Amino acid sequence: MEVLIINGPNLNLLGKREPEIYGSESFESYFEKTLKKLFPEITFHYFQSNVEGELINEIHQKGFSVDGIIINAGAYTHTSIAIADAIAAIKSPAIEVHLSNIFAREDYRHISYLGKHCKGSISGLGLKGYELAVRALMK
Amino acid sequence: MEVLIINGPNLNLLGKREPEIYGSESFESYFEKTLKKLFPEITFHYFQSNVEGELINEIHQKGFSVDGIIINAGAYTHTSIAIADAIAAIKSPAIEVHLSNIFAREDYRHISYLGKHCKGSISGLGLKGYELAVRALMK
Amino acid sequence: MEVLIINGPNLNLLGKREPEIYGSESFESYFEKTLKKLFPEITFHYFQSNVEGELINEIHQKGFSVDGIIINAGAYTHTSIAIADAIAAIKSPAIEVHLSNIFAREDYRHISYLGKHCKGSISGLGLKGYELAVRALMK
Amino acid sequence: MEVLIINGPNLNLLGKREPEIYGSESFESYFEKTLKKLFPEITFHYFQSNVEGELINEIHQKGFSVDGIIINAGAYTHTSIAIADAIAAIKSPAIEVHLSNIFAREDYRHISYLGKHCKGSISGLGLKGYELAVRALMK
Amino acid sequence: MEVLIINGPNLNLLGKREPEIYGSESFESYFEKTLKKLFPEITFHYFQSNVEGELINEIHQKGFSVDGIIINAGAYTHTSIAIADAIAAIKSPAIEVHLSNIFAREDYRHISYLGKHCKGSISGLGLKGYELAVRALMK
Amino acid sequence: MEVLIINGPNLNLLGKREPEIYGSESFESYFEKTLKKLFPEITFHYFQSNVEGELINEIHQKGFSVDGIIINAGAYTHTSIAIADAIAAIKSPAIEVHLSNIFAREDYRHISYLGKHCKGSISGLGLKGYELAVRALMK
Amino acid sequence: MEVLIINGPNLNLLGKREPEIYGSESFESYFEKTLKKLFPEITFHYFQSNVEGELINEIHQKGFSVDGIIINAGAYTHTSIAIADAIAAIKSPAIEVHLSNIFAREDYRHISYLGKHCKGSISGLGLKGYELAVRALMK
Amino acid sequence: MEVLIINGPNLNLLGKREPEIYGSESFESYFEKTLKKLFPEITFHYFQSNVEGELINEIHQKGFSVDGIIINAGAYTHTSIAIADAIAAIKSPAIEVHLSNIFAREDYRHISYLGKHCKGSISGLGLKGYELAVRALMK
Amino acid sequence: MEVLIINGPNLNLLGKREPEIYGSESFESYFEKTLKKLFPEITFHYFQSNVEGELINEIHQKGFSVDGIIINAGAYTHTSIAIADAIAAIKSPAIEVHLSNIFAREDYRHISYLGKHCKGSISGLGLKGYELAVRALMK
Amino acid sequence: MEVLIINGPNLNLLGKREPEIYGSESFESYFEKTLKKLFPEITFHYFQSNVEGELINEIHQKGFSVDGIIINAGAYTHTSIAIADAIAAIKSPAIEVHLSNIFAREDYRHISYLGKHCKGSISGLGLKGYELAVRALMK
Amino acid sequence: MEVLIINGPNLNLLGKREPEIYGSESFESYFEKTLKKLFPEITFHYFQSNVEGELINEIHQKGFSVDGIIINAGAYTHTSIAIADAIAAIKSPAIEVHLSNIFAREDYRHISYLGKHCKGSISGLGLKGYELAVRALMK
Amino acid sequence: MEVLIINGPNLNLLGKREPEIYGSESFESYFEKTLKKLFPEITFHYFQSNVEGELINEIHQKGFSVDGIIINAGAYTHTSIAIADAIAAIKSPAIEVHLSNIFAREDYRHISYLGKHCKGSISGLGLKGYELAVRALMK
Repeated sequence: MEVLIINGPNLNLLGKREPEIYGSESFESYFEKTLKKLFPEITFHYFQSNVEGELINEIHQKGFSVDGIIINAGAYTHTSIAIADAIAAIKSPAIEVHLSNIFAREDYRHISYLGKHCKGSISGLGLKGYELAVRALMK
Repeated sequence: MEVLIINGPNLNLLGKREPEIYGSESFESYFEKTLKKLFPEITFHYFQSNVEGELINEIHQKGFSVDGIIINAGAYTHTSIAIADAIAAIKSPAIEVHLSNIFAREDYRHISYLGKHCKGSISGLGLKGYELAVRALMK
Repeated sequence: MEVLIINGPNLNLLGKREPEIYGSESFESYFEKTLKKLFPEITFHYFQSNVEGELINEIHQKGFSVDGIIINAGAYTHTSIAIADAIAAIKSPAIEVHLSNIFAREDYRHISYLGKHCKGSISGLGLKGYELAVRALMK
Repeated sequence: MEVLIINGPNLNLLGKREPEIYGSESFESYFEKTLKKLFPEITFHYFQSNVEGELINEIHQKGFSVDGIIINAGAYTHTSIAIADAIAAIKSPAIEVHLSNIFAREDYRHISYLGKHCKGSISGLGLKGYELAVRALMK
Repeated sequence: MEVLIINGPNLNLLGKREPEIYGSESFESYFEKTLKKLFPEITFHYFQSNVEGELINEIHQKGFSVDGIIINAGAYTHTSIAIADAIAAIKSPAIEVHLSNIFAREDYRHISYLGKHCKGSISGLGLKGYELAVRALMK
Repeated sequence: MEVLIINGPNLNLLGKREPEIYGSESFESYFEKTLKKLFPEITFHYFQSNVEGELINEIHQKGFSVDGIIINAGAYTHTSIAIADAIAAIKSPAIEVHLSNIFAREDYRHISYLGKHCKGSISGLGLKGYELAVRALMK
Repeated sequence: MEVLIINGPNLNLLGKREPEIYGSESFESYFEKTLKKLFPEITFHYFQSNVEGELINEIHQKGFSVDGIIINAGAYTHTSIAIADAIAAIKSPAIEVHLSNIFAREDYRHISYLGKHCKGSISGLGLKGYELAVRALMK
Repeated sequence: MEVLIINGPNLNLLGKREPEIYGSESFESYFEKTLKKLFPEITFHYFQSNVEGELINEIHQKGFSVDGIIINAGAYTHTSIAIADAIAAIKSPAIEVHLSNIFAREDYRHISYLGKHCKGSISGLGLKGYELAVRALMK
Repeated sequence: MEVLIINGPNLNLLGKREPEIYGSESFESYFEKTLKKLFPEITFHYFQSNVEGELINEIHQKGFSVDGIIINAGAYTHTSIAIADAIAAIKSPAIEVHLSNIFAREDYRHISYLGKHCKGSISGLGLKGYELAVRALMK
Repeated sequence: MEVLIINGPNLNLLGKREPEIYGSESFESYFEKTLKKLFPEITFHYFQSNVEGELINEIHQKGFSVDGIIINAGAYTHTSIAIADAIAAIKSPAIEVHLSNIFAREDYRHISYLGKHCKGSISGLGLKGYELAVRALMK
Repeated sequence: MEVLIINGPNLNLLGKREPEIYGSESFESYFEKTLKKLFPEITFHYFQSNVEGELINEIHQKGFSVDGIIINAGAYTHTSIAIADAIAAIKSPAIEVHLSNIFAREDYRHISYLGKHCKGSISGLGLKGYELAVRALMK
Repeated sequence: MEVLIINGPNLNLLGKREPEIYGSESFESYFEKTLKKLFPEITFHYFQSNVEGELINEIHQKGFSVDGIIINAGAYTHTSIAIADAIAAIKSPAIEVHLSNIFAREDYRHISYLGKHCKGSISGLGLKGYELAVRALMK
């Protein structure tokens, strides 16, 4: 089973940015130390970019072959119809993940263009959200 | 560890209502045959009602003693400030679950009063959402 | 032929409440003295409650067996997605009735969540609206 | 008793337009074969036009003498303040009829300028809605 | 000096419609008995129609030759971009007249597409508004 | 003089819920120890429920006989047209009380359906608001 | 006959401000040279202020004795509920005047709080609007 | 104990304005004959102005020394961010009073900029609202 | 191949109206001198009216027999649900044409009821838009 | 004559994505096999990118030298003020093309920032829209 | 060079109001000790008022002679069309200054009527904003 | 002291684009000839890109080490939550600069996501805005 994990803008700062809030663990560390070990039977692909169009490129490139996509599009969740269209255009099912609970934040984060074309959505559960998304794809 | 599962309006119809869409399994069946067996170490409490106020009563009664609450408030998610206030008033952390992806449905289902006071939210993943919510509470 | 009539909040006050406006006849009186006599061949079930969830319970209980439902959800018409979902989940066709014309009243009464899932709607024609709804179901 | 029936834009196409949906019966056929026979004691006047102003002309001409008006203003229901004003200016009571349920269609069909000045409204019950409107006027 | 007076929908009912409110004088009577006598030096043209397009036709036909237009577009004031475009396309200056004060009525009467392209607007002053509009054109 | 006090959802938690904010006194304690003693000449009736419809039931039952109603509908203030209709339907005057100042909270708490049909409103003055409401009814 | 003319903010600049647009005549000049001469039988009172509250003071002081008020509240037209309330509280009828056509300007100038309580409104006709307003009051 | 009472625009007309509605008692009369006598132990300061900025001046001048402020800002309640900022800047607690129930009036009176920074709010209880506000400050 | 061209309100003024902007060529001249010559193999029908309902009549009359419709509904594009419904009811495909670019004009011209039921839309390309629309229908 | 064609996000998937809907021809194939052959006298430049900023770069680079730009900005049409500004800053005229009819899709696709600064717009006519755009530029 | 500095409502409290936030320096102190010393070659005029109309008076009085105006209209920035009109009517260029960043505060502070007619705007930079505004005027 | 200047989309065209409006000086020329010479003690870093994500990358890379950031995000100011989040995540204070006054332009330019997380904002003052921003950072 092959799973693609895509992280959007500002997620490369995890661990470095306000560590007292977000913890001192980067996504890469969580990915290597925790996620891969939990699911040794899965082949993971990982991609991060702050550029909206590069996220679309990656979705296009793997979206017809992997068994599932886990996408945390960060702030693009709320503004990018283009990424949402990319998810709609491919064949692999996608699960949307957010570290924080988007409904407990500013009004402009309550809208998700992305959500419309994803199979499901997990938010507010921190890095564990990625683990749960993998489990959801395994169903 | 004690977990309270609360289901809101129309969820008692699961398995009976449009089975070609929602499947032919009732929540009770899933609860007994799958969920309890997956987590034998957890004591589950289960409550379903179509009455908004009875959901609040249950949240009050168990919300200061259980270790976590999993709540699928159904349509009340989008209209009930009172249930949201109840979640805010208690001590146990709550996780919101929706069987379908609320962002892929009507506009009036995109708003969640409940979400604001929950720790996290899982939607679109069917009955498996409950399993993932339990795992999130175990973290 | 079996028909369920459901009346929502404040309709139990009919005849007692502002009689110079609404007339001095209660629904029960109209039901016994007029409606049943007009349609002796129909078996009627009647249910009134001020509790949103009890209206849902009744819809669930009879909504898979009766031949039609006539529902005047009163103020819940404009606020209850949960009752609308209940109507959508059952098999019997439903007809919405309002004593007064909702378009001639406050703006917040112009919205009907219920209407979306009903077969038809009759408003502004007073108690006679129930008779017309029965005729509509007989078609 | 005299009753005026007014049909607005596109209703002249009934029976010809998408017959698998709207049925293959034109309004004229229903009018002659069914409605007139049901109420032999009533003198009916019938008028159809696609021109907003001609509908107003007809309302003016008969609206001070007939005992009731049944009006299906079609799409003008949602855009014409002028027709609504005409209904408000005359003496005969009017009943609004819609073949389909306007609450189950596009958002811009949920608004009715007309409804504000009508005695009542019947929607979603197809051609039978005209019969019910006649009965409502007979009350 | 030539002046065209255009009256829109429902203004033909003046004097007949709710005389206790609008008075028992028709526009035609006011026009003949008062307005023409006040301004014997002016050649008046008068046109009334309930049909939006006929109002446009009249504006086109006279709008390049008369010295001024006085238009009471009635309810079309609030809904007709087409009449507003017609006013914008011609050469004669136009003055908008309303019998009642549009700001003291329903919200949907507060918008005037027409006003944008008129030289001025007079409302709330009854039939005298027409006299004042003539004076304004004479300036 | 008879006064009915009605408390809505989550007010049964007072004293238990976030005591550092709301104080450690329950409504029942305030009612017995303070309010009743301040007004020995008044017969008080007290009712609390988290169920919207039960609040309506109580309003119906006592609303034609008591001299005044003091109602803190909690979160239903902002969502319940049905409770507002109940207040409108009865004869006793009602005064709306809120412990906190609704204008200093979330936007969705700035709307009060209830207020429209109440005689007056007192908010932000904590439990003392009930005492002031009694005084207002005594006027 | 006594008439009070009230001019609001920035109208003291007339004649000085952008003379190529507004003309080089101040209101005072027009008042003395034209308006007073047109109506020698009328006693005029004139008041101008840039202070919202002083306009209210003047309305209070003369609003129970003069036969009519002509008010050009300038920009306060669109923002001042307080001036509108003052007009509503007095006995003299008021006519609203605007030099420019408010519907041909920015959106925020399309709203008039003032208009709701005035007898009529004249806009877009420059200084001549004051003359027409006097005539309207003479009716 | 020192209390400042501030009345805003149009409140100087009380007793004179529409006495059949507002009663024939002016605020000054109520203040002298009733309020001062009820609370002989309190030193009252009273200020009324129709000028927004003078209300702010008074709030500044006394707002650091009195024990409480009772403010009825009239129509400025709904439009003045500046008065709201003044209340926020001072030290004395303020209570908002309205003679009529603002939720039972026009939509634009449902918004209160002032309320956000006041301790509490009392509306709809007429002149007695001032008495209750004094009692609230005494708590 | 048969093609119907329908022009709506004010398009009869083309060539006469603001020639420095719209050019001095009328539609009729363009139609005869350019369009017909470009496509000698096509039978064209041409209809212009300023009356909304007559445009609907024409759509009904030819809409079941011609091979395509080119419609420039002018200002009715933005207000007429009735014309849009007519397009939806017929069988011939329709192409919407606008001389100017509707997105570069007033906000109220950005909405197109018509567009929803047309096959395609061409705007901003002047009279050449008609030629392109014919080519689109030929595909 | 030189023409630049710019395609935005997801248009690189054409032919591969949902071929039963969009057809099995890629843009590149259409470009080589059809478009270039139709206009042998034109020098075409072609650019596609999923990155918003790269589209801007290309507009800058060629926008002062080519004779015209044909741009299908895909989903960026509805969200990118930056691309719209780029079109506004250059000298070459631009024509907007959309494969599907944007008015027949979701509400958020009805807004076009781009359209404001383009010469014209063609939508709903599939790949043929590019041919028509070329013809429009040739005018 | 002559520069007029105008401060609006509540700015007279600077230094006294919440000193831990706004600092303990009044504007007058900053003006005398810092600003005047920085620009000895400039003649400064300074005016503060809490009264909207007095700010307008000052703008009128100096706005045709000084070389520039620096205005911090405080809360009137967001509500006063009248001050904005005053700025538009005069000849001197104006620069808007805000101590705090208006985009980081409540929604109703994001709107600036004033900004539309100012040359530029500086916000969020505290008292130093005045120094920068002077430099901007010197350009 | 180190300062990073970031320019967003279309700012690379400065000097070339509409020189009669924006002047014929490019940012690079201003930067080299004016800005650097004004502040020889400061080490400047300069970055321009039309790609949203590359602006984020640059903010990440320098945002934990420089003493201040001056950012003119161009059109991304109004649409990019992602850039705003990047500013919020770093440690260096940022000042927003706009060449033109955003409040004097289209409505959609009145919103600034960026502003929320910047220390201050300067707009409308042309290239001099950069000099003032440097001075603000020096405070």
